[in-house]
Amino acid sequence: MKDVAEQAGVGIKTVSRVVNGEPGVTPETMARVLTAIQDLGFRRNDSARTLRTGRTGAIALLVEQVADPFSSALTGAAEEVASRHGTLLLTGSCRDDPHRERELALAFCARRVDGIIVVPAAADHSYLAPEMAAGLAAVFVDRPPVDLEADSVLADNAGGARRGVEHLLAGGHRRIGFLGDSETFYTAAERLRGYHEAVAGAGLTVDPRLVEMDALKPGRIDLALARLLDGPAPATALFTGNNRLTVEVLRRITGRPGRPALVGFDDFELADLLTPGVTVIAQDPAGLGHTAAELLFSRLAGDASAPHRIVLPTRLIPRGSGEAGPAHR
Amino acid sequence: MKDVAEQAGVGIKTVSRVVNGEPGVTPETMARVLTAIQDLGFRRNDSARTLRTGRTGAIALLVEQVADPFSSALTGAAEEVASRHGTLLLTGSCRDDPHRERELALAFCARRVDGIIVVPAAADHSYLAPEMAAGLAAVFVDRPPVDLEADSVLADNAGGARRGVEHLLAGGHRRIGFLGDSETFYTAAERLRGYHEAVAGAGLTVDPRLVEMDALKPGRIDLALARLLDGPAPATALFTGNNRLTVEVLRRITGRPGRPALVGFDDFELADLLTPGVTVIAQDPAGLGHTAAELLFSRLAGDASAPHRIVLPTRLIPRGSGEAGPAHR
Repeated sequence: MKDVAEQAGVGIKTVSRVVNGEPGVTPETMARVLTAIQDLGFRRNDSARTLRTGRTGAIALLVEQVADPFSSALTGAAEEVASRHGTLLLTGSCRDDPHRERELALAFCARRVDGIIVVPAAADHSYLAPEMAAGLAAVFVDRPPVDLEADSVLADNAGGARRGVEHLLAGGHRRIGFLGDSETFYTAAERLRGYHEAVAGAGLTVDPRLVEMDALKPGRIDLALARLLDGPAPATALFTGNNRLTVEVLRRITGRPGRPALVGFDDFELADLLTPGVTVIAQDPAGLGHTAAELLFSRLAGDASAPHRIVLPTRLIPRGSGEAGPAHR
Repeated sequence: MKDVAEQAGVGIKTVSRVVNGEPGVTPETMARVLTAIQDLGFRRNDSARTLRTGRTGAIALLVEQVADPFSSALTGAAEEVASRHGTLLLTGSCRDDPHRERELALAFCARRVDGIIVVPAAADHSYLAPEMAAGLAAVFVDRPPVDLEADSVLADNAGGARRGVEHLLAGGHRRIGFLGDSETFYTAAERLRGYHEAVAGAGLTVDPRLVEMDALKPGRIDLALARLLDGPAPATALFTGNNRLTVEVLRRITGRPGRPALVGFDDFELADLLTPGVTVIAQDPAGLGHTAAELLFSRLAGDASAPHRIVLPTRLIPRGSGEAGPAHR
C-alpha cells in the first residue's frame, strides 16, 4: 500500500479510502490510485487480519449439488448460523465426485477457512487428518465420514423409510416396490434397510424383483416401472428413496389408470399442490445444516470432546398419494 | 514442512505423502507426522503455486440465495464451465444484502480467486474497481453493475414480461393484475416496464390499482389479491413477476371458484404437473450462468475488449393457467 501511495503521489490514507470504497476521494485521485494499483499488481490480502485474530472469518460448506433443493435448504440454514457468528459461508458442489470433494476441500483449506462442513462424496476422508491436526474444524453431514474421526449429523434414514413403508403396509399393500439411489451411498443403503425392516416386520419376505437400486441411472426408471407395474404380480404401491426419484416417478405415473400408491423419501416444494398431494417422509435438511453449523462453531469455540454423531428424526406427511389402498387397481 | 519433518523425525517426502494423502506411510509414522503438524500449526498453503502459475485455479460466484431454483440452475451451469476449464467454482449467497455482497466479494478476493461472477445485490460496485485494476476478472449476471465498467449477462426481462401480458391480452383479458418484487431491483423494474408496454400497446391505460410491487413483503400478497380479485372491478388475469410470487399466488388461488388466469415470469419444476399446468415466461438461468462463466474465462484468457452487455431471450410456455379466458369468471 505504501508503494501504491508513492506511485500515485497520495497519502496511504487515500489509498486505503479507495480500496475500502470510502467517500471523500475525487474521481481524478481515484483514477491515479487505480492506475498505480494496476501498475504494481497490488491485491487486497487478509493475511494480516488472520495473523491478528487467528481466525479468517470464513467457513466452507461442501454439498452434493448446490442445485438440489435438499442441499439448498441445508445451505440456507448453515448460512444463517454462520451469519449469526459473524462468519462468511463459502460453498462448493462435489457432485458426488470423490476427487472433486477432495480438491474443493483442500482448495478451501489452502484459502484458510476456519472450519468445513462436508456432505461427503468420497469414501475416504483421511486426507483431512493433517488439516484437522493443524486446527481445522470439520463436521460431516447427511453421510458419516470414512476413515476419519469427526463429528457427523445424520437423518434417521432407516427409521424414516421403515415408517413410510409401514404406512403403505397399514393401508393394505402387500407388494410394495422400492426405487432407490445407488447402494454405494450411505443414505440409499440405510433407506433400503428401513424398507427391509418394515417388510420383514409385517411378516412378509422381501421379493428382490420389487427392489430397484441405481434407479437414477439413465433409462432405469422406465424399465423398473414396466417390471414393477406391468408384470404378472404388479406392485400396488411404490416407495421412492429420494425426491429426485419421487418427481421422476410422478412424471411417469400421473394420469395412469390404476396408478399405484406412492410415498417418497424427502419433502419437496409443491408436493401439497399436486393432485393428489404427495405423501412423503420429510427429513429436515435445514435442521441438518443448522445442527452441523452449530456443532462446527462449538468446536471452533474450543469444544474438544470426542466426536459426536447426531441423528435427526424424520416425519410422515400424509397428503393423499400414499393413502390409496390396493383395491382400486 | 521442513520443520514438521524434523520434529517428526522423518523425511520431507514422508510429510508430503501424509499431507497429500498418498499411500506408503505406516499408521505410526502418520500419527507422528500429524502430531508434529499439530504442535507446529502447519497448514497447507497454495501461495507457492499461485506465484508459479499466476493463477489460483478458482473463481467465485455470488448469487442471491443458493436455495433459489434460479440461482441453483445458474450455479450448476457456471460450475460445468469452470470444471471444463480445470477451475474450481466457490460460491456464496448475498441474500439481497448489499453489505453482504461486498463482504463476500472481498473475502473471495482476499482468498485469491482469479475471477468473480456476481448476481448483484449492491447498488454500487465501485468497491471492485481496485481489484479489477489489479487483474481480477468480473462479470455481472441477471442485473447490471452500478458505477463500475464490467461485463453483464442479462435476461430480456422487459421483453419477456411484455410477451406474457400480450398473451393474456390476446386471450381477451382487459384487467390484468401485476404482482412484482421491489422496484429497487433492476429485474422487477424491467418486468414492470414490460407490463406497461404491453398494456399501452393494446391501447389501454394502466390502472395503478392493478399493480402491486413489493408483493413479497409479509402480508402483502393477501392484501393485494383481496384488492385485485374481490373488488368491484376485479382482475380476470394475473401476471406474477417471479417464481416465488407465482408459487405464493398459486397457493392462494388453487381451488378458488372463478380463479383468474395466470402467467408467471420464470419457469419452475413441476409447473407442468400442476392442474392446470402453469403458463410461464421461461428465462434461461443455465444459459445466464453458462454465458457469464464463458465470458469470465475469455477475460482471463486475455480478452481486453470493451465491456459486453449480453441479453438472453425468454420464451413463453403455455400450459393451461394462462389460456383461460375472462368469460368463466
